[in-house]
Amino acid sequence: MLPRRPLAWPAWLLRGAPGAAGSWGRPVGPLARRGCCSAPGTPEVPLTRERYPVRRLPFSTVSKQDLAAFERIVPGGVVTDPEALQAPNVDWLRTLRGCSKVLLRPRTSEEVSHILRHCHERNLAVNPQGGNTGMVGGSVPVFDEIILSTARMNRVLSFHSVSAWSLSAGILVCQAGCVLEELSRYVEERDFIMPLDLGAKGSCHIGGNVATNAGGLRFLRYGSLHGTVLGLEVVLADGTVLDCLTSLRKDNTGYDLKQLFIGSEGTLGIITTVSILCPPKPRAVNVAFLGCPGFAEVLQTFSTCKGMLGEILSAFEFMDAVCMQLVGRHLHLASPVQESPFYVLIETSGSNAGHDAEKLGHFLEHALGSGLVTDGTMATDQRKVKMLWALRERITEALSRDGYVYKYDLSLPVERLYDIVTDLRARLGPHAKHVVGYGHLGDGNLHLNVTAEAFSPSLLAALEPHVYEWTAGQQGSVSAEHGVGFRKRDVLGYSKPPGALQLMQQLKALLDPKGILNPYKTLPSQA
Amino acid sequence: MLPRRPLAWPAWLLRGAPGAAGSWGRPVGPLARRGCCSAPGTPEVPLTRERYPVRRLPFSTVSKQDLAAFERIVPGGVVTDPEALQAPNVDWLRTLRGCSKVLLRPRTSEEVSHILRHCHERNLAVNPQGGNTGMVGGSVPVFDEIILSTARMNRVLSFHSVSAWSLSAGILVCQAGCVLEELSRYVEERDFIMPLDLGAKGSCHIGGNVATNAGGLRFLRYGSLHGTVLGLEVVLADGTVLDCLTSLRKDNTGYDLKQLFIGSEGTLGIITTVSILCPPKPRAVNVAFLGCPGFAEVLQTFSTCKGMLGEILSAFEFMDAVCMQLVGRHLHLASPVQESPFYVLIETSGSNAGHDAEKLGHFLEHALGSGLVTDGTMATDQRKVKMLWALRERITEALSRDGYVYKYDLSLPVERLYDIVTDLRARLGPHAKHVVGYGHLGDGNLHLNVTAEAFSPSLLAALEPHVYEWTAGQQGSVSAEHGVGFRKRDVLGYSKPPGALQLMQQLKALLDPKGILNPYKTLPSQA
Repeated sequence: MLPRRPLAWPAWLLRGAPGAAGSWGRPVGPLARRGCCSAPGTPEVPLTRERYPVRRLPFSTVSKQDLAAFERIVPGGVVTDPEALQAPNVDWLRTLRGCSKVLLRPRTSEEVSHILRHCHERNLAVNPQGGNTGMVGGSVPVFDEIILSTARMNRVLSFHSVSAWSLSAGILVCQAGCVLEELSRYVEERDFIMPLDLGAKGSCHIGGNVATNAGGLRFLRYGSLHGTVLGLEVVLADGTVLDCLTSLRKDNTGYDLKQLFIGSEGTLGIITTVSILCPPKPRAVNVAFLGCPGFAEVLQTFSTCKGMLGEILSAFEFMDAVCMQLVGRHLHLASPVQESPFYVLIETSGSNAGHDAEKLGHFLEHALGSGLVTDGTMATDQRKVKMLWALRERITEALSRDGYVYKYDLSLPVERLYDIVTDLRARLGPHAKHVVGYGHLGDGNLHLNVTAEAFSPSLLAALEPHVYEWTAGQQGSVSAEHGVGFRKRDVLGYSKPPGALQLMQQLKALLDPKGILNPYKTLPSQA
Repeated sequence: MLPRRPLAWPAWLLRGAPGAAGSWGRPVGPLARRGCCSAPGTPEVPLTRERYPVRRLPFSTVSKQDLAAFERIVPGGVVTDPEALQAPNVDWLRTLRGCSKVLLRPRTSEEVSHILRHCHERNLAVNPQGGNTGMVGGSVPVFDEIILSTARMNRVLSFHSVSAWSLSAGILVCQAGCVLEELSRYVEERDFIMPLDLGAKGSCHIGGNVATNAGGLRFLRYGSLHGTVLGLEVVLADGTVLDCLTSLRKDNTGYDLKQLFIGSEGTLGIITTVSILCPPKPRAVNVAFLGCPGFAEVLQTFSTCKGMLGEILSAFEFMDAVCMQLVGRHLHLASPVQESPFYVLIETSGSNAGHDAEKLGHFLEHALGSGLVTDGTMATDQRKVKMLWALRERITEALSRDGYVYKYDLSLPVERLYDIVTDLRARLGPHAKHVVGYGHLGDGNLHLNVTAEAFSPSLLAALEPHVYEWTAGQQGSVSAEHGVGFRKRDVLGYSKPPGALQLMQQLKALLDPKGILNPYKTLPSQA
């Protein structure tokens, strides 16, 4: 049986978000992304090694002597209780399961260094784990890799605002295991915001966000982590601590080594400390939730909105009618606007409430007047803003309650972004329960999801490689923001040429010659 | 004798910028950055190998057979005329000089690939060169390295705006040798702007900008090239063409290899094609040029301005009184405001002229009323905007006309940013002609320059390692945006720990095992 709640559930996570319930039926916030996993009576997840054709590499297995060594390195931080190990062996989507027998909970970079030095000497494989909210199975062991959890590395080390390194942003330095939502709260109290936000914020760790190069809901405005992460401390495979932990906005002293680790999913080193740029908290935030009669109107709404809202536009998300139905059915969230084929969520963030309201007002007037939008609602107070955001943020959760989910996260030319959804509906017919499309339109990022009652090899065969070939045909990316992990490692070739894959292998061999860091992930299995 | 103009001066560069002359005395624009180099009767620049303790590495020398091979690869693109080779052997600051006997001018990535394959086989060293506007001697040979010029690789390959990959930005794909100002003009005609701008725009190449991770005047608003460059095509040391040329905003399929080459100064590979994100052209641009009574007021002006202008602030530059005197003396540009100890240039870029003017008006009223600012002028029409910008952009040129320049480009905590300038004035006394400070305040980036009648080892000894030690004492960076090149390679240790330098060497060995790419640059000489 699975435990009712994962290991070391922090107290604040059990409280739920204040003011988040109400007529919308269910708590919105930290519990959301975890909700579906703790339902009792959920069927056992099959072992990854049984479902997928993967062979264990010749790593050592953990011995009593190893456990004693770990206990010396992290006293009280060695977990071997089988029940406590069940949750961290299973991924958030509950479709992958490893059989690790040890989880380590270091508190410091030094402890991580000692652990890796030992594992490197002993040829023991290590699976770094943050909030375990990833979508591609990058954060759970495939076999018996040691799980190295960053959960206890959750200290903020420093926060500098106006008076120190920068006058235009705050600079946060914290350990890798800090939960994103906790960090958001911390910097917001100081009048700044985190440069990224995502549905899993209540559980995900900043170290995992950086290791997976998370995109999310603020990408449109604040850009990629390759631009906002200022520095990293990373422990390399042999235990060496690599200090790239600058807090400088500009630093051209040699190769920008930290970039190597952003998005490398713990396969090149384990991120232990993060220095990140935090934009000032906007004085005025507005959210509009609109219904659109077709996808062409969604695109046109975005162009118009970008032109009329310009620099204050901070998010433009879209979802289709089926998403809204599923959010209603599984999470009891009601649509705030009349039924439409598509919905868009627009957020503005600016420094002058009057100016922003005026810009948004003009835009809405135009959009409604020209038929781009058929119905809409707006929010400025925080409670309603959160409710509108929940409709978009909780789609992932609603889908996971709908059955087995085949997930695709594609970068595509915006014009053709929705074609693959209609194509799949026709292709799959009644074999799929639902085919939905939603995502970050302004970034050309579609989340394409197909649900079914259960996993089925024939449905999978109808989906793959079709979806990947279709994407490659558009010069798109088969993983826009979710990363590669275990699930996508053998489809990289659809988006990357052989020369690039070869250089990735060479970098892996340089930084982790024994291959002990997060094996079976990120790089293609054949090479 | 030096040639009056460098090799292949493009026709448009000789025309001067329209509307840029007038009461301000001198042309502003493309000619500006080059002006000081073409003065007749300038003394000969000493050979780098004679002034600096550097030994030639055991590369082959170019033979007749090599020249014949190059002629087959780039017919008509092999330059061996000694007079034509003088300019590309000397850096923009005229303090370094190599003795290369061959310059190659390929037009395509394929030609670059063939050249490098040949050089790799023959163990011939190669010095990539773009606009040769760098400040650290990264773009000129130290000995007889073959100069590989990107000047003829100047084609725009594609530009996509609203209808294709992104709705919120344009995506430009072009060859590495495109001149930044030409690209700016190209995308501005299509209602977009380049995400970077710098004083050398009239000559610098986009490939060089990316290879050196150029910062510049729009960094505050649009961030680093690590965030705005979407894709690169790079030719590796052995001639392999590495295709990372995506135009996707988001792509998490494996390690982000292009990041390795951004800022690696041609030492890991030669960038041949660039895909870059271009923000929409702002509808309203305002520039204010203000006088401040002290550095404390400069800092306070920035904080206030950031708070009141928020998302429309696109540049905040400062310069001291000596900068203004030198710009007046050497370039005959007059100050538009009354004499002050400090000046700041503020630029706003937004989508609604009325809103922006109102925000700026409130800010200026507050700044003048509270004594932060003692005098100011504003511009919205393009001609006056250019004139105000020229005061800041042409400081480098004015300094180079003042004598031999010792240049430092530091990242420092903003509070202490100007302390090193006053410290040096006291330390150097009459030994220096001028000590000036200016730069990108919002990014914590100080340009510290010391001029003297001529190069003097004793003045150098008074400056170094003092400046570097002072910077390291503040946990700053000894190269904020100019890079490392030849000049700074032995001071990296002030900003980077030994472990990071070691990993850089390992990356160099992996990607360029024979060390033929831009040798004597970027990495410390001892290792």
